[in-house]
Amino acid sequence: MTDSQPDRLALLEARLEQAERRLAAAEDQIALWRIVASYGPAVDSGSAEITAQLWTEEGVYDTYPVVLNGRDALRGMVNGERHQSLIHSGAAHLMGLPHIVVDGDRAVVTNYSQLVLSAPDQNGYRIWRTGSNRWEFTRTDEGWKVTHRWNRQLDGTDEGRDLLARAVESEA
Amino acid sequence: MTDSQPDRLALLEARLEQAERRLAAAEDQIALWRIVASYGPAVDSGSAEITAQLWTEEGVYDTYPVVLNGRDALRGMVNGERHQSLIHSGAAHLMGLPHIVVDGDRAVVTNYSQLVLSAPDQNGYRIWRTGSNRWEFTRTDEGWKVTHRWNRQLDGTDEGRDLLARAVESEA
Amino acid sequence: MTDSQPDRLALLEARLEQAERRLAAAEDQIALWRIVASYGPAVDSGSAEITAQLWTEEGVYDTYPVVLNGRDALRGMVNGERHQSLIHSGAAHLMGLPHIVVDGDRAVVTNYSQLVLSAPDQNGYRIWRTGSNRWEFTRTDEGWKVTHRWNRQLDGTDEGRDLLARAVESEA
Repeated sequence: MTDSQPDRLALLEARLEQAERRLAAAEDQIALWRIVASYGPAVDSGSAEITAQLWTEEGVYDTYPVVLNGRDALRGMVNGERHQSLIHSGAAHLMGLPHIVVDGDRAVVTNYSQLVLSAPDQNGYRIWRTGSNRWEFTRTDEGWKVTHRWNRQLDGTDEGRDLLARAVESEA
Repeated sequence: MTDSQPDRLALLEARLEQAERRLAAAEDQIALWRIVASYGPAVDSGSAEITAQLWTEEGVYDTYPVVLNGRDALRGMVNGERHQSLIHSGAAHLMGLPHIVVDGDRAVVTNYSQLVLSAPDQNGYRIWRTGSNRWEFTRTDEGWKVTHRWNRQLDGTDEGRDLLARAVESEA
Repeated sequence: MTDSQPDRLALLEARLEQAERRLAAAEDQIALWRIVASYGPAVDSGSAEITAQLWTEEGVYDTYPVVLNGRDALRGMVNGERHQSLIHSGAAHLMGLPHIVVDGDRAVVTNYSQLVLSAPDQNGYRIWRTGSNRWEFTRTDEGWKVTHRWNRQLDGTDEGRDLLARAVESEA
């Protein structure tokens, strides 16, 4: 026998602690993923409160040229005439694959989004908007919450591309 | 020394058991994810048997106004003239991000889906359908299987939105 | 007492080893996922070096009728006049859900992709391309790298469908 029982126990404890840390990292990815996957169903079903709760109380949604500051403004957007008109004539807020970077209690998610509208005259649907998104998250007692989301159109202007560049710089 | 070896062993066993449960939960997410990611490749390649095996033997695919009951009906859909015509002129069944909720041996996945068709006259592709989906799964000896999938168009009618609302109610 | 401490220790070691293997498998899924989610942001922001680094030095991107051989060719594609023109007039390389199969130090990812372009005359965006992709990966000291990616249009020709069929055969 080369290993004593106390040594084996200490080694097991260290290995398990490392596995628990790795597991928590995977769980963060899954949790952030789910929040992004919740956004479309929340707004397209007109669920104002659930949409607002994805953000912190003071969280910002900057979707040029509109800037929504805080949960009340988010509720107002979902309940507003413009959004209600969209979803009652047929709308889908589609989310692209989230690119997720977690750093302790902060996280950044970057993805594409599209707003697709029913187009009965074309016997189908048309794409009204296609943009890039940067979501900044903070870990709270109620889980990850959005502190700031930017949405910019990919229409040839710089901002949409710059936002995508920031995501992949972390791969370098 | 404050801890005895038997105490440390018992503590390790409890921690490992908890880690194993959390790991199994992450694996469920990954497995359900993969099934949803399989659907498009299965139907767009005309793989009737693989499509049918995603469901239980008696599983239902309710895609208004058609209701397919059981694997034979699913095979028939894939092998049918209408579907074969679509995939031989160019079709993509695109799946949106799955929103996954697991409860023991049951799971619900909610996502968007689109049917995109080749449109040579537009030098591109057009969106024919954009809808919401609710997939109910059961855990079987052969892994997760669909017991019931609903697909509803997001064309301004209530059903598509209601299906999305049911998904996010679980976030509240 | 039925179990001796040495037996319990050996059992714990075996269980932890298995949990570590399962955890590594989940981490592989997450890592491959992230690479696919990086592709769009890399090319749409014009990040040539980051795009090239997704592949191995000699990695191939076969996007019919063009075949790019190695990182220099990938950099050249991103920096080339055609791609620069696309992204400066508004382009989004959208990635569908990755279907991931890992086998030791090799992996295959299958997904859909779309190239969506700004279409100011339509007050929106249009879909130029919709295809299927097969990505073959190898595990390296710098993580998973693409050795070969095929992209084929889903325009009714056989190749796009065949590529999808190969993915789901692994489900059978």
